Amino acid sequence: MTETVAPQGNHPISGSTRLYVVLGDPVTQVQSPALLNPLFARWGMDAVLVPVHAEPERLERVVRGLQDAGNVDGIFVTVPHKPAAAGLADRRSPMVEVTGSANALRREADGRWYAENFDGLGFVAGLVAAGHDPNRERVALVGAGGAGSAIAAALLAAGVERLAVCDPDTAKLEALRTRLDAHWPGRTRTSAAPDTEGAGLVVNATPLGLAPGDPLPFRPDRLAPGRVVADIIMHPRETRLLREAAELGHHVHCGIHMLDGQVDAYRAFFGFAPPVRATTRAGDVVRRAPA
Amino acid sequence: MTETVAPQGNHPISGSTRLYVVLGDPVTQVQSPALLNPLFARWGMDAVLVPVHAEPERLERVVRGLQDAGNVDGIFVTVPHKPAAAGLADRRSPMVEVTGSANALRREADGRWYAENFDGLGFVAGLVAAGHDPNRERVALVGAGGAGSAIAAALLAAGVERLAVCDPDTAKLEALRTRLDAHWPGRTRTSAAPDTEGAGLVVNATPLGLAPGDPLPFRPDRLAPGRVVADIIMHPRETRLLREAAELGHHVHCGIHMLDGQVDAYRAFFGFAPPVRATTRAGDVVRRAPA
Repeated sequence: MTETVAPQGNHPISGSTRLYVVLGDPVTQVQSPALLNPLFARWGMDAVLVPVHAEPERLERVVRGLQDAGNVDGIFVTVPHKPAAAGLADRRSPMVEVTGSANALRREADGRWYAENFDGLGFVAGLVAAGHDPNRERVALVGAGGAGSAIAAALLAAGVERLAVCDPDTAKLEALRTRLDAHWPGRTRTSAAPDTEGAGLVVNATPLGLAPGDPLPFRPDRLAPGRVVADIIMHPRETRLLREAAELGHHVHCGIHMLDGQVDAYRAFFGFAPPVRATTRAGDVVRRAPA
Repeated sequence: MTETVAPQGNHPISGSTRLYVVLGDPVTQVQSPALLNPLFARWGMDAVLVPVHAEPERLERVVRGLQDAGNVDGIFVTVPHKPAAAGLADRRSPMVEVTGSANALRREADGRWYAENFDGLGFVAGLVAAGHDPNRERVALVGAGGAGSAIAAALLAAGVERLAVCDPDTAKLEALRTRLDAHWPGRTRTSAAPDTEGAGLVVNATPLGLAPGDPLPFRPDRLAPGRVVADIIMHPRETRLLREAAELGHHVHCGIHMLDGQVDAYRAFFGFAPPVRATTRAGDVVRRAPA
């Protein structure tokens, strides 16, 4: 995110206004309209994001109906529809194929829905914006659940040279490696316990750190000096992992960056407006995920 | 219409915002979002009206998809979809059944679409607001085309005692009478030429008067004194018919009233907000039809 979001109204809606939709069940809790409509106005876009409530058994007809509407350019997807949206898309990004889950559908020139998963892309965009581009890096990733799978795929898509993923559930881990190898062959290695050797960047993608008494997901004192330690946990902003890593002299990257990165990634994906290159302190502007 | 429409923004859109849609092909020309969204805000409604573009061959899927969306409360229908919308509705008002055409679909408690035609209701609401309630009146209507058919049905629904409809196309006229008699038996009589005898209110529903050299649709000098002469033509505001009728001492009712009446009728139909009873000069506030 590169702009200050002043509280302001939406762009006036006219017959030429393009539509974006956020789909959920329920949908009343979504924050994305309040976040994005003022940005659309600020960016000079004649567009509006509206919530659409779709129960699971009606999701397919709603998605197809929106596809038949000529001025609906995109759909944001929130719980519980992310896996179903991946299945309803006409085309899927590698991130969607690896994770089996989609955050967004974009109308393509031929009217098809192209699905993307931003859980990992937002994380990587946040890394890049903070000066920690993972391209050609060796990365260790701790945790191969939903978030970990998405981040693994996004890191490989971003050009990570070698990815070491660990998870105690080795069956799930091997299944993930098979899906990753289908897109990025031979770049992933797996282990039940953290394998941080040689890694320039180590990422916690487990929930460890959410609670005050949690053990560390891996030992930062075993890293070579001056590595980057990243956490996906947003609350607390500084986890025990990040605090201890900082005390050891490592560079730390906190979870809130993922949100800023996600808005930038959505913006690039939908082509909302030309990206503006500038820097802000992450977390100052956008405090909630879009959707 | 009972309020001054100040230029102002929309209500902020959140996850709890209810949706209304205006469907057309094209849809870029519709004025209803610019008209109604500021009114929604003024009325304190958490609702937004957005345009949806639907090509005819996709209309049914779009309408069904919107039906499956839990927070879409209504659809405004504009060209060319009004006849098709009547067919897609689950239930139809008598006005829709008579005219075979719908301006609006309202979501009922059971999720069905209930169709209404406002072409005639707006005219009648405008009459009532101007102090010319047609209830128990004898009315002559000149012209049985699309507008005339809708006005005929709305007049009968409003309690007109006897309706004399004339049109030179007697086959079309008899077909209309059959449809009217199905809902309001025995109250309509027909003739090829204008039959204004005994009428307290005479309505021009033909295009005669749009062009400066047009003949009169009927002769106001043959009416008993002090009748009401109404025209549906909006431009010019004062047609030759109305000018001559006024010179003869009749009360005249111009076409622009129909628009004000239509917004009031939509408001009552959708339950947008409790109706406010007040009077303004018709045409001062709303200058365009909603959709």
